[in-house]
Amino acid sequence: MKVGGRPLRTIWPAADGHAVEIIDQTRLPHEFVIARLERAADAARAIRTMQVRGAPLIGATAAYGMALAAGEDPSDAGLERAAAMLAETRPTAVNLSWAIAEMKRALLPLPPARRLAVAFRRAGEIAEADVAINRAIGAHGARLIAEAWRRKGGEQVQVLTHCNAGWLATVDWGTALAPVYRAHDDGIPVHVWVDETRPRNQGAALTAWELGQHGVPHTVIVDNAAGHIMQRGLVDLCLVGSDRTTAAGDVANKIGTYTKALAARDNGIPFYVALPSPTIDWRIADAAAIPIERRDPREVTHVEGWSEEGGRRAVRVTPAASAAANYAFDVTPARLVTAFITERGVCPASRAGLAELFPDQALRGAAQ
Amino acid sequence: MKVGGRPLRTIWPAADGHAVEIIDQTRLPHEFVIARLERAADAARAIRTMQVRGAPLIGATAAYGMALAAGEDPSDAGLERAAAMLAETRPTAVNLSWAIAEMKRALLPLPPARRLAVAFRRAGEIAEADVAINRAIGAHGARLIAEAWRRKGGEQVQVLTHCNAGWLATVDWGTALAPVYRAHDDGIPVHVWVDETRPRNQGAALTAWELGQHGVPHTVIVDNAAGHIMQRGLVDLCLVGSDRTTAAGDVANKIGTYTKALAARDNGIPFYVALPSPTIDWRIADAAAIPIERRDPREVTHVEGWSEEGGRRAVRVTPAASAAANYAFDVTPARLVTAFITERGVCPASRAGLAELFPDQALRGAAQ
Repeated sequence: MKVGGRPLRTIWPAADGHAVEIIDQTRLPHEFVIARLERAADAARAIRTMQVRGAPLIGATAAYGMALAAGEDPSDAGLERAAAMLAETRPTAVNLSWAIAEMKRALLPLPPARRLAVAFRRAGEIAEADVAINRAIGAHGARLIAEAWRRKGGEQVQVLTHCNAGWLATVDWGTALAPVYRAHDDGIPVHVWVDETRPRNQGAALTAWELGQHGVPHTVIVDNAAGHIMQRGLVDLCLVGSDRTTAAGDVANKIGTYTKALAARDNGIPFYVALPSPTIDWRIADAAAIPIERRDPREVTHVEGWSEEGGRRAVRVTPAASAAANYAFDVTPARLVTAFITERGVCPASRAGLAELFPDQALRGAAQ
Repeated sequence: MKVGGRPLRTIWPAADGHAVEIIDQTRLPHEFVIARLERAADAARAIRTMQVRGAPLIGATAAYGMALAAGEDPSDAGLERAAAMLAETRPTAVNLSWAIAEMKRALLPLPPARRLAVAFRRAGEIAEADVAINRAIGAHGARLIAEAWRRKGGEQVQVLTHCNAGWLATVDWGTALAPVYRAHDDGIPVHVWVDETRPRNQGAALTAWELGQHGVPHTVIVDNAAGHIMQRGLVDLCLVGSDRTTAAGDVANKIGTYTKALAARDNGIPFYVALPSPTIDWRIADAAAIPIERRDPREVTHVEGWSEEGGRRAVRVTPAASAAANYAFDVTPARLVTAFITERGVCPASRAGLAELFPDQALRGAAQ
């Protein structure tokens, strides 16, 4: 998508071939900074500190991290060390372990001297596959927005989204926002209500920024306001992403997704989850088995932003003596999801719906 | 309740008899500052800038504001001017207009020379009535907490609350938190999950502060996390306040209350609204008729807190070019409320339930 009128991705190999470059997302929306990753440890740190985030982009970064590892120490032991380091950066996103396993599968059968070149090529393919998946999600989802537009007689379509499942969460296009970009580019008038998404404010910081850069009309609200604007008829459909989806159709996504889904259900508003198939965890049927990351309470007790004198600054919002808890994800049960939007089309949020679109993967998952 | 071990209220007449003193709640939790109100305009500004907030305390402050007006200009015209100025400070809380009307009813029949003394006495009575109401709510609500405690075999009771409906929102005791203070003082182990309550963070700033000062165990969470902790069985009951309740039992309260009620319903958790009868608007049957205050978008785009160098500071969390909308309240339909806790006891959240506890007021309201 566009930044300042120029097309850009979130991760790409550096021109010199010895490194990978990323947009440092911890600096957005106030500063636009490109960071250079030269070692696997840089990639692990970028994931852990959330310079890159979003399940698909975490996967692509881990893949490139394995490529950087192949440049440092292409031995089996070297790759295994890097794989272990990368795997422990974030516990919830299934793409992370998928991308690492895929890189090991591609590299370990090769003689060490050939691994570096193949590694960069395979990581590039993983990144391109993500772009292709998201472009397809955009096309399928844009049809749902176009239907809402026709139903409204050509009035602007009102979409609510939570967290950032835009192009910044992927290599390009995004998942939940891919349909929005596609509809907007096709000339359908669309406005996005952007949930702030405490505690890390990915909606206020990242979604608002990327929509603004691409020219999509949008309004930021606090997370508490989503139910109210649905009650007042100001939302036509909800579009969110997924960090991990069970074979039964339950959705682990950013904390707060569940309550938005409850509000959509209570007001008869369609609640769509955009779902690239690599985020499906075919081995987990029971959503209670999904590990839910608990992060540093400081993300709750403090808020980071841009100070009036310029410069990033954190302010404490709680009393120093008060405890805080920081749950990063929740699980939205399949019963609250109207449909999944995948790269292969739209399907019911159920085991049968997923299995019909992805029979090969469903079969393989059931056999494990 | 207690601050640093010493009992305190939120508003009281100054020792010299010429002014009123309040805790400046915009400075909490980082600084404890007492502000002096000398004129009706000071009271109006204190309400508008939320140095005092919470429906019952707004009412008490408006009553004292009328008393200050009687000291400035006790004529009919002087009191009417003050009444109009105070009435337009906040649109949603019904106590505001109730307290102003009550002061006019008490003062206008008197000769102007007698109005000042009566005004301070009547404002003091309104404040005392609030304390008595909240103490009664505490006694009735504590029985519900004690029941949960027995059901759990003596384990700590987990309460979730939203915004600040503690003693800082009233003259003393609070509404939603009165049962918590009473249970805690009675020796029942209770822990409170405190919703941050964006955009103004009254939970993180005020509820956490007052619970901490009184010694009640508590943990701050972001608003997005409330649904998740209910799903995981970490909440025994929800307790919130109400800014305005319709005769049919619908509850206008801080933005976000509605989605917490949806999550409680979805998880079979009791959702109680503590309801002093002055917050019942007997003339409004349709919740859609409640005016919902829209506040400055800056409360959404910026977060205020305490900087590491010391001192209050606001940081911007959104891109400068992005729009924001700030809805201050939402309406929780009666069907999502397990019961009301009032000064006269616990009743179903319905027209019949309210009318049975308050037959006199229901009759008067229906006649209007």
